[in-house]
Amino acid sequence: MNSDSVAMMNLHEKLHKQETTVCIFGTGDFGRSLGLRLLQSGYSVVYGSRDPKNSLLLPKGSKVMAHAAAACEASVIFVAVQREHYGFLTHLASDLEGKVLVDVSNNIKTGLYAESNAEYLSRLVPGATIVKAFNTISAWALQSGGLDANRQVLICGDQAEAKQQVVDIAQRLGFTALDKGSLRAAAGLEDLPLQLFPLWRLPFYIAIGLAAFIFFYVLTRDVIYERVTNGKDITFRIMVSLANKVFPIVSLVMLALCYLPGALAGFLQLYNGTKYRRFPDWLDRWMLCRKQLGLLALAFAFLHVLYTFVIPIRYYVRYRINVYTISLVKDNKTYEFDNVAAWRHDSYYSMGILGFGLFVLLGITSLPSVSNSLNWKEFSFVQSKLGYTTVLLCTAHAFLYGWDKFLKPYKWWMPPAYMLSLVVPCVVLILKLILITPCVDRKVTRIRQGWERQSKTSANCTDGKTNQPLMA
Amino acid sequence: MNSDSVAMMNLHEKLHKQETTVCIFGTGDFGRSLGLRLLQSGYSVVYGSRDPKNSLLLPKGSKVMAHAAAACEASVIFVAVQREHYGFLTHLASDLEGKVLVDVSNNIKTGLYAESNAEYLSRLVPGATIVKAFNTISAWALQSGGLDANRQVLICGDQAEAKQQVVDIAQRLGFTALDKGSLRAAAGLEDLPLQLFPLWRLPFYIAIGLAAFIFFYVLTRDVIYERVTNGKDITFRIMVSLANKVFPIVSLVMLALCYLPGALAGFLQLYNGTKYRRFPDWLDRWMLCRKQLGLLALAFAFLHVLYTFVIPIRYYVRYRINVYTISLVKDNKTYEFDNVAAWRHDSYYSMGILGFGLFVLLGITSLPSVSNSLNWKEFSFVQSKLGYTTVLLCTAHAFLYGWDKFLKPYKWWMPPAYMLSLVVPCVVLILKLILITPCVDRKVTRIRQGWERQSKTSANCTDGKTNQPLMA
Amino acid sequence: MNSDSVAMMNLHEKLHKQETTVCIFGTGDFGRSLGLRLLQSGYSVVYGSRDPKNSLLLPKGSKVMAHAAAACEASVIFVAVQREHYGFLTHLASDLEGKVLVDVSNNIKTGLYAESNAEYLSRLVPGATIVKAFNTISAWALQSGGLDANRQVLICGDQAEAKQQVVDIAQRLGFTALDKGSLRAAAGLEDLPLQLFPLWRLPFYIAIGLAAFIFFYVLTRDVIYERVTNGKDITFRIMVSLANKVFPIVSLVMLALCYLPGALAGFLQLYNGTKYRRFPDWLDRWMLCRKQLGLLALAFAFLHVLYTFVIPIRYYVRYRINVYTISLVKDNKTYEFDNVAAWRHDSYYSMGILGFGLFVLLGITSLPSVSNSLNWKEFSFVQSKLGYTTVLLCTAHAFLYGWDKFLKPYKWWMPPAYMLSLVVPCVVLILKLILITPCVDRKVTRIRQGWERQSKTSANCTDGKTNQPLMA
Repeated sequence: MNSDSVAMMNLHEKLHKQETTVCIFGTGDFGRSLGLRLLQSGYSVVYGSRDPKNSLLLPKGSKVMAHAAAACEASVIFVAVQREHYGFLTHLASDLEGKVLVDVSNNIKTGLYAESNAEYLSRLVPGATIVKAFNTISAWALQSGGLDANRQVLICGDQAEAKQQVVDIAQRLGFTALDKGSLRAAAGLEDLPLQLFPLWRLPFYIAIGLAAFIFFYVLTRDVIYERVTNGKDITFRIMVSLANKVFPIVSLVMLALCYLPGALAGFLQLYNGTKYRRFPDWLDRWMLCRKQLGLLALAFAFLHVLYTFVIPIRYYVRYRINVYTISLVKDNKTYEFDNVAAWRHDSYYSMGILGFGLFVLLGITSLPSVSNSLNWKEFSFVQSKLGYTTVLLCTAHAFLYGWDKFLKPYKWWMPPAYMLSLVVPCVVLILKLILITPCVDRKVTRIRQGWERQSKTSANCTDGKTNQPLMA
Repeated sequence: MNSDSVAMMNLHEKLHKQETTVCIFGTGDFGRSLGLRLLQSGYSVVYGSRDPKNSLLLPKGSKVMAHAAAACEASVIFVAVQREHYGFLTHLASDLEGKVLVDVSNNIKTGLYAESNAEYLSRLVPGATIVKAFNTISAWALQSGGLDANRQVLICGDQAEAKQQVVDIAQRLGFTALDKGSLRAAAGLEDLPLQLFPLWRLPFYIAIGLAAFIFFYVLTRDVIYERVTNGKDITFRIMVSLANKVFPIVSLVMLALCYLPGALAGFLQLYNGTKYRRFPDWLDRWMLCRKQLGLLALAFAFLHVLYTFVIPIRYYVRYRINVYTISLVKDNKTYEFDNVAAWRHDSYYSMGILGFGLFVLLGITSLPSVSNSLNWKEFSFVQSKLGYTTVLLCTAHAFLYGWDKFLKPYKWWMPPAYMLSLVVPCVVLILKLILITPCVDRKVTRIRQGWERQSKTSANCTDGKTNQPLMA
Repeated sequence: MNSDSVAMMNLHEKLHKQETTVCIFGTGDFGRSLGLRLLQSGYSVVYGSRDPKNSLLLPKGSKVMAHAAAACEASVIFVAVQREHYGFLTHLASDLEGKVLVDVSNNIKTGLYAESNAEYLSRLVPGATIVKAFNTISAWALQSGGLDANRQVLICGDQAEAKQQVVDIAQRLGFTALDKGSLRAAAGLEDLPLQLFPLWRLPFYIAIGLAAFIFFYVLTRDVIYERVTNGKDITFRIMVSLANKVFPIVSLVMLALCYLPGALAGFLQLYNGTKYRRFPDWLDRWMLCRKQLGLLALAFAFLHVLYTFVIPIRYYVRYRINVYTISLVKDNKTYEFDNVAAWRHDSYYSMGILGFGLFVLLGITSLPSVSNSLNWKEFSFVQSKLGYTTVLLCTAHAFLYGWDKFLKPYKWWMPPAYMLSLVVPCVVLILKLILITPCVDRKVTRIRQGWERQSKTSANCTDGKTNQPLMA
């Protein structure tokens, strides 16, 4: 080996040492947890602190130095300091020259600053390369070894090699890393830990709105009407009877709302003659929250089931049965058995139970760990075929519940509440019925496989040898 | 540094650039999603297209070129084109020489071609190295960042280095990679996305078959017998009463079928005197679908619970109670309280509830994310100890339900349906009882720890110092 | 290129070959499964065996040799042999010089040996580098491709490079690797597969103890008291009535116990004026098992729900209703409708149902795959806000159940059992109420953001520019 090789090896050794030493600025919860995890994974850890002598509770095996000294020890420096205190880094500019600074910070609220913390840091220390990472990982997840908590580290930054160094560290700590692009993505990453169920917001408001509307509708039609016309106070029914009208109606409507956008999208594709035109924004947003709509509908269905099973032990129900039996005895009458009623009631319960059973199955397959173990074909079979069967069963359940109630005179021109619940499901089922008729189905399938109706923009397809996109 | 080192560095730089540029042939859904993800992860992306000027909707930051030009830009080329259009690649043979072609294609149906797409591609472009990968990942999973969708990329190919390049890309995109061997495995990988619950098929047919048999048995014994002998039409009972006989019976039998193969395997190992002899094929297949058998049994048990709780609000049940009360009043009799009946009924419900509770627990621990967090000892404790307790409780539940019904005269020589449900569970419990008697248990444990009965084939064990296999 | 480079390349090639060949000592279950997986992932596999000619059932494509010969073929050797048989390795000391030995062994029981298997191996073969790994992975997980089983390989060892080689192998096999530090951690890793729900132990004993206490309390107060004072035998009530008193009480108390430590911790932080002082050990241990306490409470609540829904089909209940109706008829009285009772009963059921619904939601979000998909803010919103709402609803449910029962004369000076269940929940709710009053809340929030009360040890904070720790 000649001297060059030896020199290269020395260089390599030094680089290697630098690579396995990591510096952390900040000795708070996150800094300490990160240091502990790094030590466990075989890294050397050097803390940078304003007051190295008074830094307590640091993990065993780590060193503490003044910031400048600590910075020299490693090529990667984690800045585990709040944005408000970034100021001190400007004085270290020369020590940080050429280093990789990993910004792990989060803010307390969204919208506090116009610029992301990472971009602000990049402006403060222009000589260093900034990588945003680990801000979505909590101190607790670092401590618990990543088994139970989110194991994906999101990373962004402008320089690929710096990012790769951070990716290597993340993987060595037992995390997986996902590159989210340039440092401009940092603002997005910093918003992530501050979000509170962003995808659930719209479905939640829909559920609340629907529930409130149905509640007041039923309150007016049942309780207030009774009060006004007969002077009877039956407000106690709010707690169970009314709740058990509101919950199933909201559940059925939301279940249908969860399948409506898919059907609409099918018709839109038929109309456009291609699948390559964007859906309108409202439809896109609607389709993105279908899972949440469905799960909320399941929650309401679950409550409906519980409320139904509690019926026979209710004081009011026992009272009514008792009164009825005694009245029969007194009038010397007998309960006439009605075969149609027996069929109707039992069918009604059966539809409901089977529908709920399928609904629970849909819910289970939407658990992340279950849906991950399904391939695309299986997932769409469950969510589409079984989903429509669920809608069908639940709609039948509602129809059998109503039976001939729609013939009765309306109270205050208000139809029975169950009729409101049937509008959306019927629309969905009719649309689906049209979509699965053989001639329409063939067209939709061809469109979804990439076929486009003849038009100017797709003239390049006419030679029939263009690269057809894969269905995936 | 001498000139060689410089040359090597230049080469390295060029290689590095080639490594971070990825070419994609095909601008369909999958190609576009893949390109977007690659760009986000810091790769440069070049699309190869027949008609670069008319390729629309491609992700920002990517380039589009003619196929030949695009191929020169990168060492890894994703072929996101359907198999039927592979033809054009033969004209590019010289441009593809030495490149890594990643075949991501799937077919619409299984069995369309004798040869896998990847092997066909390998024949078409012999100068390139083919790697099959990413075909189990959907365009949607690529877009959604892999958090919610399957994150494992299956890879196969004949050359290790080419595979490593694809593994690196997969990991950089946030996926984990699993090497499935040589290109001959491609056919298997291409079948994966076309499978529809392969492991559930057998248990599902068993469930359907059993349910149909029990249904017709119960229909004959209850409804048709009543019709023929008493002329009474009680067909309305099909909807709830009969369903609530069929579901628990199917559930109990399938639960027992789920534990039977384990017990049989124990006896087979005892008989063979070793655990190193293969089980017969039917037993192997049976053991592989135990989880599915158990989960279907749980689904039936769940329906049974719902059908049971709905009993007291049924029209027919209320009618019967009413009629009975009135008849007592008229005959001036009182309901005689039977202490044994009270014990029996309450025990029967209690066994059922506790059994169902444990059953739900078994179901929860078989969720992928839960079973992953258990070690082997914990998993086998739950699935074996708690599993047999569940069988025991549910069998006791059925026995208490039946009580003295087996003494009543059979209708048309048909015993009550619940008796059918007890055969398999009793067999399982008796077999298990034998297996856990101390003397048998000791033998089985030794066999499972690797001990073999003296015989010719295991003569090499006689020196007592052979490497004993680990229990794991 | 000069000769050095050529030499380096040859060396590299040889190293590369050695790196891609893996040797396995031991041909048992684990050795075979590991070999198969290595082969699938592109490694060459050489088995070392005492009797290479009689080694059967080894995976196709692997070679079998005598130990010494096999050791020469690879730089990494898996020792898949039980500890008792490690002796033969001392004879191979020279062949193992400089090799990486991966100890994958487990013991049958904990505490069998003072020294971990890996450290023992390290003493036996001082010339080799020992890495402990893969012992938490079962043969079955190796075979099933890691999709369904635990995919994390825990690794420890004293030399970083040797560990890195094993990490590379683990990743290539589709596992993720987590470095657990030096070889001294091996004892801990070897205990892992022998643990049986260590975190569940304490909560389980608490549940059993509580359930036993409440059972005997209720047994004495209801059954024995009735027997002694009225001579009536109502032991049959044990099966359902008593169970349905024990389960809800245990559930409510355990739910409250799950939130009590958090409230106590808040007060302790207020008292200490900092969050940087350690909690006492008992509180730490209590806080670590909150999830398990909560899930056990949910299990009891689930059983309570089932026991409640079964009430109206119980023989005893039907008997009582029947007797009551007939007595009303005979005495020519009518059931007087009590509006307050109707309100109370229905509210009581409603609180219970909504509380249980929220409780199930809490349970679902504690599934690993669900909690992993939540950020810290969402997780703490669900577990804290919704958790306290659940406690509140369930406590209200218990209060409404009791209503005026606390006024009735005690039997044998024993208050009704439900009153016992209310003590802990009320304490929790009162503590929480204090903590969320604006003035206290402000202080707690500041402390949790890292603020410390002025004191000598934190004098270094006075300049206001110290690195404030991040909330994470």
